[in-house]
Amino acid sequence: MFNKILIANRGEIALRIIRTCKEMNIRTVAVYSTADKDSLHVRFADEAVCIGRAPSSESYLNIPNIIAAAEITNADAIHPGYGFLAENAEFSAVCEEYNIKFIGASPDMINRMGDKATAKATMRAAGVPTVPGSEGLLSSVEEGLKLAKKIKYPVILKATAGGGGRGMRIVRNDGEFKKGWDSARQEAGAAFGNDGLYLEKFVEEPRHIEIQVIGDKNGRVCHLSERDCSIQRRHQKLIEETPSPVMTPELRERMGQAAIKGAEAIKYEGAGTVEFLVDKHGEFFFMEMNTRIQVEHPITEEVTDFDLIKEQIKVAAGIEISGKNYTPKLYAMECRINAEDPGNNFRPSPGKITNLHLPGGHGVRIDSHVYAGYTIPPNYDSMIAKLIVSGQSRAEVITRMKRALSEFVIEGIKTTIPFHLRLMDNEKFKEGDFTTKFMDDFDLSGL
Amino acid sequence: MFNKILIANRGEIALRIIRTCKEMNIRTVAVYSTADKDSLHVRFADEAVCIGRAPSSESYLNIPNIIAAAEITNADAIHPGYGFLAENAEFSAVCEEYNIKFIGASPDMINRMGDKATAKATMRAAGVPTVPGSEGLLSSVEEGLKLAKKIKYPVILKATAGGGGRGMRIVRNDGEFKKGWDSARQEAGAAFGNDGLYLEKFVEEPRHIEIQVIGDKNGRVCHLSERDCSIQRRHQKLIEETPSPVMTPELRERMGQAAIKGAEAIKYEGAGTVEFLVDKHGEFFFMEMNTRIQVEHPITEEVTDFDLIKEQIKVAAGIEISGKNYTPKLYAMECRINAEDPGNNFRPSPGKITNLHLPGGHGVRIDSHVYAGYTIPPNYDSMIAKLIVSGQSRAEVITRMKRALSEFVIEGIKTTIPFHLRLMDNEKFKEGDFTTKFMDDFDLSGL
Repeated sequence: MFNKILIANRGEIALRIIRTCKEMNIRTVAVYSTADKDSLHVRFADEAVCIGRAPSSESYLNIPNIIAAAEITNADAIHPGYGFLAENAEFSAVCEEYNIKFIGASPDMINRMGDKATAKATMRAAGVPTVPGSEGLLSSVEEGLKLAKKIKYPVILKATAGGGGRGMRIVRNDGEFKKGWDSARQEAGAAFGNDGLYLEKFVEEPRHIEIQVIGDKNGRVCHLSERDCSIQRRHQKLIEETPSPVMTPELRERMGQAAIKGAEAIKYEGAGTVEFLVDKHGEFFFMEMNTRIQVEHPITEEVTDFDLIKEQIKVAAGIEISGKNYTPKLYAMECRINAEDPGNNFRPSPGKITNLHLPGGHGVRIDSHVYAGYTIPPNYDSMIAKLIVSGQSRAEVITRMKRALSEFVIEGIKTTIPFHLRLMDNEKFKEGDFTTKFMDDFDLSGL
Repeated sequence: MFNKILIANRGEIALRIIRTCKEMNIRTVAVYSTADKDSLHVRFADEAVCIGRAPSSESYLNIPNIIAAAEITNADAIHPGYGFLAENAEFSAVCEEYNIKFIGASPDMINRMGDKATAKATMRAAGVPTVPGSEGLLSSVEEGLKLAKKIKYPVILKATAGGGGRGMRIVRNDGEFKKGWDSARQEAGAAFGNDGLYLEKFVEEPRHIEIQVIGDKNGRVCHLSERDCSIQRRHQKLIEETPSPVMTPELRERMGQAAIKGAEAIKYEGAGTVEFLVDKHGEFFFMEMNTRIQVEHPITEEVTDFDLIKEQIKVAAGIEISGKNYTPKLYAMECRINAEDPGNNFRPSPGKITNLHLPGGHGVRIDSHVYAGYTIPPNYDSMIAKLIVSGQSRAEVITRMKRALSEFVIEGIKTTIPFHLRLMDNEKFKEGDFTTKFMDDFDLSGL
């Protein structure tokens, strides 16, 4: 087992990883930017190293500084969390070169799954259902128009290097296609330095349902059932739950086996997530595979009793997994509490938390790095807490979430708590009747 | 179902009950003394009524004021929590008289189980094993000496109205008996206004293991397995866990069936706890039955997924229970965090909490009524939080508890956190090798 793990991240996930390391008697090194010197991950780690100034490029994305921090502290492994360098093949390769175990995917795996067109081709070859579309990147607008005609509108244009909805356009006819092609290329080029686009059939009334998998060095892969992340705003997940309200044992078996087949095909090692779109007929299509821990992993932990970070570390240390698949024993839901103003287009609301009261009690879990007196810096992601609730039925989870939200006090900044409270009273949501387009019609007025 | 429940209590248990009521869409009324006007239970209840000054006799034990509060707010039920009026037969009777449902035992049940000598006789008649001893109260020191000779020393003298160790003496010969008789009578008379004593064989190397039961109006009783509460100081529980490290499926079955038999014999309705002493040979003896929710109920909730307060309310509303017995699916442990100085004989340490950070993450539950800026009044019990941890093994629970304790920050007052941290490193404790006498030899120096 590792002696010391450096956590190349910040915020709640850095704290989350430190917690598991403490429980495994592994020493921890926090790294931090100058904007994060008062953060809890710095306080709770055994050691902490400042790796640069607030802009991520100078600190949390600065590979030489992070490797130097690992070297001077003698860390024998690095956990990247999610975001930042978690799916950066170069970072994974540099860790390997410096003989520091990267607790995540190999450079090759990251490359294969990180490029969405390659990922899709790999999965299709493995027999995982994918959305019909272009074989890799489109070379020209003409090629795209021809293919769109063949697979029928609506289709969606996507940036191969994309994420978070950037470089993405839904188009319904040739005119929209030409316009979308130009603007998506431009956006992708500016955001990712890569303007490559690919095309897919646009799945209507889709749900976003993902399967958690874990694989070990022997090529054994098991799944820990699904998470429904359909409630999104501009492709950002707002709330996740398990089991999915539309899941059946038969569909879970089929999706679970597809996810395992895909992961086995690439000899996937570690925790990963295979994201699918599920249409209203129960057909599912591979979207992408995330070769890292997900923000929403705690809901899976609550219903399977597994500590997924512990499983990641064990697998990275060469320990075999059981190979058993898990179905949820309970129901769980996560609300992402962001420092954003839901009544003002979810505009970020950084600043000082003047007063804080966290909910507690039966079935309530909080993953958060904030405290009363903490100042949320404007530099990073606006998520400040994950409120995770579990219970014996979906109805119990919703009433418990409502209760927990109602006693969650954060003063000094705006948060998404009022939005989540309103969502818990929404009839369609309560019935489990929603798609990834749910937020398009959601009334945010007066929040 | 009830429309509105008045909670005749304070602190974490008042908050705990409000939480479940919110989840059941039942309105709540808090009552509070002048010392508790800034308490969270007052803030989180739908309505709040001041019932008198700080001394409990003028507020939380003031039956007319509490009934008046229920009447003016139109509450149709009262939940008494634990302590205060939870096992007060007169209060239960007055509620009945005023047509307010008392969410607890009937006056008759409280009387039968509240008087320890009667309780023991009732249980013995029902076939539940009891410790050999006097049949009811001792009429004279001579009768006691004669009986002690018969069942053999050591024996223990106990006040029939006692609790918390008061009016209790272990005696090992006739001389000690005479001395103990006088001092226990005097202590019991002063503390409870009742100097009646009874006598029992003193069980050596005992563990305190209790069985959670729940019964409904049809006389059906089930058990939700055990809690080991052997780690006590002066008969005050410090830490509780489930399953017990000494439990076997066979012993659980025997103890569970004994507890059910006892509860069925008295047609017990609601949640109750049958406390046993278990000796080193695995023999168990009925100690007492608590006709209320226990402080340590959350560990049972964590391993069975039941909300015991919800079950209490449902049973009080006439809803039948499943009748199924439950065995723990996980391991759970609770540390009672008290505002006490463990390095100074656990002296109470009331005062203002200047800074507070609660632990969180996987497997961690907090039940607490305190917040940063809250002033702990000197008038009441010193428990300020319950830290409840669950996991897949006892070893995982202990490392997780240690991790959670290490990130629990309470500034401005002394707490028992340093004691619990030391306990988690104790070899005997880690091996599960302890009796109710464990604390007699525990090193508290330097805490």
